[in-house]
Amino acid sequence: MKPAPVLKCSSCGKTYPYDPFLVLCAECRDPLGPSYPPLKRTIRKDKERPLERYLEFLPLNDIDPDLSLGEGRSPLLSLRSFGADAGGARVLAKNEAANPTASFKDRGTAVVVQMAKALGLRRIGTVSTGNMAASTAAYAARAGLEAVILVKDDTTPEKVKAAAVYSPLLIRVEGDYGEVFDRSLALGRKHGIYFANSVDPVRVEGYKLTVFEIFEELGGRLPRCIVVPVSSGGHFLGLARACLDLHEAGLIPGLPMLAGVQASGCAPLARAFRESRPRWERFPAPRTIAHAISNPTPPGGNAVLRFVRENAGFIADVSDEAMLKAQRRLASDEGLFALPDSATVAAALPEVSRRAGLTAEDTVVLIITGSGLKNLEDLDLSRARTLSLSLDELDAALSRSGG
Amino acid sequence: MKPAPVLKCSSCGKTYPYDPFLVLCAECRDPLGPSYPPLKRTIRKDKERPLERYLEFLPLNDIDPDLSLGEGRSPLLSLRSFGADAGGARVLAKNEAANPTASFKDRGTAVVVQMAKALGLRRIGTVSTGNMAASTAAYAARAGLEAVILVKDDTTPEKVKAAAVYSPLLIRVEGDYGEVFDRSLALGRKHGIYFANSVDPVRVEGYKLTVFEIFEELGGRLPRCIVVPVSSGGHFLGLARACLDLHEAGLIPGLPMLAGVQASGCAPLARAFRESRPRWERFPAPRTIAHAISNPTPPGGNAVLRFVRENAGFIADVSDEAMLKAQRRLASDEGLFALPDSATVAAALPEVSRRAGLTAEDTVVLIITGSGLKNLEDLDLSRARTLSLSLDELDAALSRSGG
Repeated sequence: MKPAPVLKCSSCGKTYPYDPFLVLCAECRDPLGPSYPPLKRTIRKDKERPLERYLEFLPLNDIDPDLSLGEGRSPLLSLRSFGADAGGARVLAKNEAANPTASFKDRGTAVVVQMAKALGLRRIGTVSTGNMAASTAAYAARAGLEAVILVKDDTTPEKVKAAAVYSPLLIRVEGDYGEVFDRSLALGRKHGIYFANSVDPVRVEGYKLTVFEIFEELGGRLPRCIVVPVSSGGHFLGLARACLDLHEAGLIPGLPMLAGVQASGCAPLARAFRESRPRWERFPAPRTIAHAISNPTPPGGNAVLRFVRENAGFIADVSDEAMLKAQRRLASDEGLFALPDSATVAAALPEVSRRAGLTAEDTVVLIITGSGLKNLEDLDLSRARTLSLSLDELDAALSRSGG
Repeated sequence: MKPAPVLKCSSCGKTYPYDPFLVLCAECRDPLGPSYPPLKRTIRKDKERPLERYLEFLPLNDIDPDLSLGEGRSPLLSLRSFGADAGGARVLAKNEAANPTASFKDRGTAVVVQMAKALGLRRIGTVSTGNMAASTAAYAARAGLEAVILVKDDTTPEKVKAAAVYSPLLIRVEGDYGEVFDRSLALGRKHGIYFANSVDPVRVEGYKLTVFEIFEELGGRLPRCIVVPVSSGGHFLGLARACLDLHEAGLIPGLPMLAGVQASGCAPLARAFRESRPRWERFPAPRTIAHAISNPTPPGGNAVLRFVRENAGFIADVSDEAMLKAQRRLASDEGLFALPDSATVAAALPEVSRRAGLTAEDTVVLIITGSGLKNLEDLDLSRARTLSLSLDELDAALSRSGG
């Protein structure tokens, strides 16, 4: 039996008793994370399901398997055709799009619902541009929790549908996304709704499991680099915490290079990193097709900037054109249909390679965060080879095409 | 080293040397399947990946892991809220929507590309209404094979996009779907394109792995019933062959009841079953939202009818309304977003229960074949709770909703 977790600010070190309605440090406004007692933690190798296998690294005492939708154990795939972009390194993709609602968000939501049920809460919520909305609504439905989903008023009908199907209370909110985030935390406390948003301390702990799986899949090692899209910062911070956990547990000799990738059309962190500023500034007039990673005021951003500064990581950004091209290559050459937002990590490989000095001895893992099925609108099919024919024209067409 | 497989007709027993362009028996027009030498086959428990673990049950000598997209190992989830529909039985869902291209088709395509590469073929193809198109295009892209995808001319733009992204040669063909199927086999032989369609002998072998996983997940047993949507018959026949394989290997004492479910708007097999006819007749004027299971002339249908007749299985059909309701329940009560085509299995539970006389002692497994993300068009959200509000209206709305 683990004691109830304590929340700690990774910036100033201030601690707070655990409280599901507490997300940001009152002093620095940086995300809080659970602080674990200084016990040696180990992977429970006799367990198959990720939540049970890595339980000692989570702020939970036990797991109710019925709350799970089967998240995790995502494929780790070789991307041979991208080796040339990475100095001949071995390039692997950890395909988080294979999760139950087709994005990495399920890793975090799976832990959130365990915590909500353990605390006896009845309502959970989230503020989302799409992926977290569907994930939170799905897991809430499974757990018998009421879900309150707040989405931006310009969220596409497809994304609204993919969340509404689970029958949450779904509210399109007019107004600034950052303000909705802040307001949700205050309203959550007032109305007893646990808003597990992007940088929620418990949600972020769930993202750690992706790194633990990579560690085991590579035979007890981490790759030289891990590359991940970065928006609010929660996912990045989860992966970073996992690396720190493994290091603290004596399982890895040092940390891998963590690289975050943003869309050039909304890149407050890449800009701050480039200008060597420790804190982001609101990104003016965001404009990108990568809606899932378009957050001009990222609540976890300063913590991300500190991590990359202290641990030789970096933040890059790529254009919409570059991410669409990478999306096309991932699909056409590797059979992997990623969101453009997710394909950013492949587009950034040349820069990762340059900065890390990758060679054929190295391994780099790209985190594919969401399925391309979630955004068919912006798909660039200008090079697709499609024909419309009658049955009788088929023979001639097939004979021409063979070559 | 296994010898090259022999193809055998399950109806008349006639055998043929293996040939990738041969699908149906020349005599009975029923699908052929590989015939294995009479050796005791076992599960290789030291292997994790399904293709390697169950290799002895596949017509392959070895596996190239780089051709895989990480198919299989899909979640087996309890559906507690459906127990009452099943006489109190334990209801489980095997969620094949968790496969790389979000449908069960990947199980078969994964084996098809292994065979194509082993044979040194350069082009593969398929005739599909959508799911098999995306699956075949994705695996071909990964394997470096040219893909030729034939779709019905009324295939929705969404489904065309989800396949076209992998850059196959994609042809919308005007004309009868059954004729396109037949013509593809002849043209495939002529032009050297291995058309791995719905009932391809090798594709169907891949579907067996779903049952092997269920067998292991249930601790070395099969459930009382397995319920699966049925269209061309390939999936059903794969599951049936797996049950026969396990029985032949002495791993199960008898066969489970296999139930196939069709859409009432295109139910040639349910109709033949109800009328105790051994062979289907073309279903006139098909009309259903369940496009993925709408085949009025199912090439594997007579073999399915024979299997259920000889093994106490059955074929049911459910209305579009019933499948949409089941889709809603799966999402709202269990967090599982299935295609309406896939939700048929949940809609049919009361009939399964009646026919099988299910009790609280029994377990029934529903095969969820594809993700609801593949058809957002037909989604019934009439009961969704969605609001559009300003930030200032949020407080009042959340206080009203808590109840």
